[in-house]
Amino acid sequence: MALYIGVSEAISPLPTITLSQLTSTLGAQLRGDGALCIGGMASLDQASEQQLSFCTSSRDQERLQHTRAGAVLLTDQLAPLCNTACIIVDDVRLAYAKASQHFSPTLPPPSVHASAVIDPTAQLADSAHVGPLCHIAAGAFIGERAVLESGAIIGCDSHIDDDCHIGPHAVICHGCQLGKRTSIGSGSVIGGDGFGFAWVNAERRWEKIAQLGRVLIGDDVEIGSLSTIDRGALDDTTIGNGVKIDNQVHLGHGVQVGDHCAFAGNTTVAGSTRFGSWCRIGGGAIINGHLDIGAGASITGSSSVMRDIPERATVGSVIPASDMRKWLRTTTLLPRLQDLFRRVSTIEQRSQSR
Amino acid sequence: MALYIGVSEAISPLPTITLSQLTSTLGAQLRGDGALCIGGMASLDQASEQQLSFCTSSRDQERLQHTRAGAVLLTDQLAPLCNTACIIVDDVRLAYAKASQHFSPTLPPPSVHASAVIDPTAQLADSAHVGPLCHIAAGAFIGERAVLESGAIIGCDSHIDDDCHIGPHAVICHGCQLGKRTSIGSGSVIGGDGFGFAWVNAERRWEKIAQLGRVLIGDDVEIGSLSTIDRGALDDTTIGNGVKIDNQVHLGHGVQVGDHCAFAGNTTVAGSTRFGSWCRIGGGAIINGHLDIGAGASITGSSSVMRDIPERATVGSVIPASDMRKWLRTTTLLPRLQDLFRRVSTIEQRSQSR
Amino acid sequence: MALYIGVSEAISPLPTITLSQLTSTLGAQLRGDGALCIGGMASLDQASEQQLSFCTSSRDQERLQHTRAGAVLLTDQLAPLCNTACIIVDDVRLAYAKASQHFSPTLPPPSVHASAVIDPTAQLADSAHVGPLCHIAAGAFIGERAVLESGAIIGCDSHIDDDCHIGPHAVICHGCQLGKRTSIGSGSVIGGDGFGFAWVNAERRWEKIAQLGRVLIGDDVEIGSLSTIDRGALDDTTIGNGVKIDNQVHLGHGVQVGDHCAFAGNTTVAGSTRFGSWCRIGGGAIINGHLDIGAGASITGSSSVMRDIPERATVGSVIPASDMRKWLRTTTLLPRLQDLFRRVSTIEQRSQSR
Repeated sequence: MALYIGVSEAISPLPTITLSQLTSTLGAQLRGDGALCIGGMASLDQASEQQLSFCTSSRDQERLQHTRAGAVLLTDQLAPLCNTACIIVDDVRLAYAKASQHFSPTLPPPSVHASAVIDPTAQLADSAHVGPLCHIAAGAFIGERAVLESGAIIGCDSHIDDDCHIGPHAVICHGCQLGKRTSIGSGSVIGGDGFGFAWVNAERRWEKIAQLGRVLIGDDVEIGSLSTIDRGALDDTTIGNGVKIDNQVHLGHGVQVGDHCAFAGNTTVAGSTRFGSWCRIGGGAIINGHLDIGAGASITGSSSVMRDIPERATVGSVIPASDMRKWLRTTTLLPRLQDLFRRVSTIEQRSQSR
Repeated sequence: MALYIGVSEAISPLPTITLSQLTSTLGAQLRGDGALCIGGMASLDQASEQQLSFCTSSRDQERLQHTRAGAVLLTDQLAPLCNTACIIVDDVRLAYAKASQHFSPTLPPPSVHASAVIDPTAQLADSAHVGPLCHIAAGAFIGERAVLESGAIIGCDSHIDDDCHIGPHAVICHGCQLGKRTSIGSGSVIGGDGFGFAWVNAERRWEKIAQLGRVLIGDDVEIGSLSTIDRGALDDTTIGNGVKIDNQVHLGHGVQVGDHCAFAGNTTVAGSTRFGSWCRIGGGAIINGHLDIGAGASITGSSSVMRDIPERATVGSVIPASDMRKWLRTTTLLPRLQDLFRRVSTIEQRSQSR
Repeated sequence: MALYIGVSEAISPLPTITLSQLTSTLGAQLRGDGALCIGGMASLDQASEQQLSFCTSSRDQERLQHTRAGAVLLTDQLAPLCNTACIIVDDVRLAYAKASQHFSPTLPPPSVHASAVIDPTAQLADSAHVGPLCHIAAGAFIGERAVLESGAIIGCDSHIDDDCHIGPHAVICHGCQLGKRTSIGSGSVIGGDGFGFAWVNAERRWEKIAQLGRVLIGDDVEIGSLSTIDRGALDDTTIGNGVKIDNQVHLGHGVQVGDHCAFAGNTTVAGSTRFGSWCRIGGGAIINGHLDIGAGASITGSSSVMRDIPERATVGSVIPASDMRKWLRTTTLLPRLQDLFRRVSTIEQRSQSR
């Protein structure tokens, strides 16, 4: 009874690559049989003989010696410890990143699923892929090779540039713009209304402030699952190029994020805060509104930011968890700190007056 | 191949309004050319000659003097500093809120999209708008002028009253009720199961407690994107009139929220906590279950509430982030506080005994 | 105009059960009229004569004496205080859990909605229920009596075992596996990409690490609304049997969760952390990556975990909110703690040298 589509939209089997091809792609040096076919990656412990692994530290020496991986990415310092084929590189983590990309599922071919709903005034590149049950509203633009996964919603007059990837059930609200090669994770909402109300004192109630700005996102941005970036109240919310945002992050209305910032999971940023480029924000941080966070600043996870932060500063207010019974006793002392400072001052004065 | 609908569902061009119309709507006083047409709003820096701006503080004096805005909302005190048309009001922020509403996208016309799935036993007002790929389940009620955006899901026997607005992919679970003019943001889930389990000690496992209550939401409530309000375990979860809830907020089962409370982003409230009216909760607050939060109480963002809070109290436990190296040293001292209190007592006793 | 389905998919009226049937199901002892028909549950205050309630503590003595409930679950100690029918059990909360399950809405019948999109290579048990606007991708497997609610998306080659329940708009990404009787709440995303990037120092930008692992979830797991569990970077993210996860929880790539752990709302766990069985994590906890959390450990809500935790330990770093003006003064003293420790040492040395 359901809408079975005649041709399966299966993803292709994982691609394979020979060690010599891979080594040449990475601009690296190979020790071992270049004809070996590699079909995926795994950790040193889990890798099979058809898989590539990597080793970044001599602390993993034992795991390296016992790995059954077909080949291992490592530096020339670690190569002597390895009993299997080696791809020798300078920056192992970067080589791992580049190698891993060979083994992601291939992108779906250009096509528009019969169940997708597309307004006749939307512009859709022929090379785009629109999955089942997507909705593309009036005036929206979808660029070359863009991929919209099942259930993605693209609002009126929004702009999705070339090679973007919109995850299942992601929502891009009206008028928002995404640059090239930008990826939005499953269920994330770009351009929902910001949280803006005026207090009506006479009636003791809130009056809504219409959220008239947009969200403008640069190139090469990646946003995880179930994150929210609110549209500006007046001026636009802006996300620079190369910014990486994890899951369940919330950026309020009018936030401005410089290029190549990274926000870990569950971070909350209130409205109108500005980040310079290359900031790094740890998971669960809460950042107040209307602040200036200098370029290159680091905010430790679990911290609460209530003041401007200078460039390249590293700030935090996290308290590491410890035995709960002892910690509860400590928390009962905190309100008595002011008194303790006074008592110590009194003692000092007395001792001086002697 | 996709389901192209013959008539575009484009949103209308932004409405314009003359300065004299706007001034009269706001019950304000105009200084300048009442015939000027305004087509939107922007900040003092960004506004063009067809846009309205606003100025709330003499600290923005310089920006006010240089603005190119067609007109500015301000108090009569600031009016002499303004070189363009002025709309003079008592409460600038409230006037801004009311003015902004003229420039939001107009609501879509009454219509039901061909791709929506509507159970024959659902009741749907003729003036309602049902967007593409919505699902309205059996026994649900959708009131006059209600708007369901793409992919909204309305569960069995739920009640969506007049003039409600349900965002894209929002989910209203079975039996839940929304009052008039209530708005639910994109992807939010109203009435999911609460987190309730009994510990089965003999088998060292959890047994599910079926969540039999509902969520009842009042009039004029606004809930942002990706928030969750769980259904009651037994008695209903209730949200009063005029309550405003930001993105990614979680209210547990059986929570009761009084009228006109406001919850900022990423707040978490455990089950059965009761809020009096007019409470204000800052972003990222964590509030324990089974507490009484008095009317008019304020909870500072990033704070953890573990006890009842009296009416009109302002409480918090946030620590502002500071230089991380110094802060880490401070955290190593916290477990030694109890010892420090003892040492100071010892010194005091010794000094008294002399 | 919309896709009205001829036969209503209404949920059945709530089931009723006689007191004697219910008592026998619970293996309990009845005091009162076994023929009484019970049609639901409510709290002592709210219950009607057709409803069951429960009482766990003598603190509720007064509410128990005045309840209008048709019957009350309680221990034999509390039975003398009860003026209505009693079902006498040893573990009231467990009996409540089991009784509550009689009154949940019945599961929808086997059927596939006409608007669902199912790839021809997907395998779907005849007894499964697929709601409106679901998408089941190529190679996916849906087991016996599985229920997919409206808008659920099941990715390529994923495996949904018997009796699973997938909530509205939930997304199971490609290759992920769910055991038997596992339930995923509305809008949750299982198997989105983890947050993995290599820093390209020469170009001062991030390079994506493809996320090649899967998410493997055991039997009898329950996950709430809008939670995210990321796929492994290389090795799989794994969730054991009987694990319970609340709303808006985020588990990063490669996290391993032992059997019967419970995570309360809004908890964030960074990548590769391992939990032994029976851990309990309070709401809003932030847990660093690459940690070992011992079996049976408890992490207090609102706490930040930065080190391994031994088995059965209870840890925390929450600070209870208190009067904000006084608390702010306390926070200004924290950076001066190191100095205070020094001052006290100086006083001690002086006093010793006398």
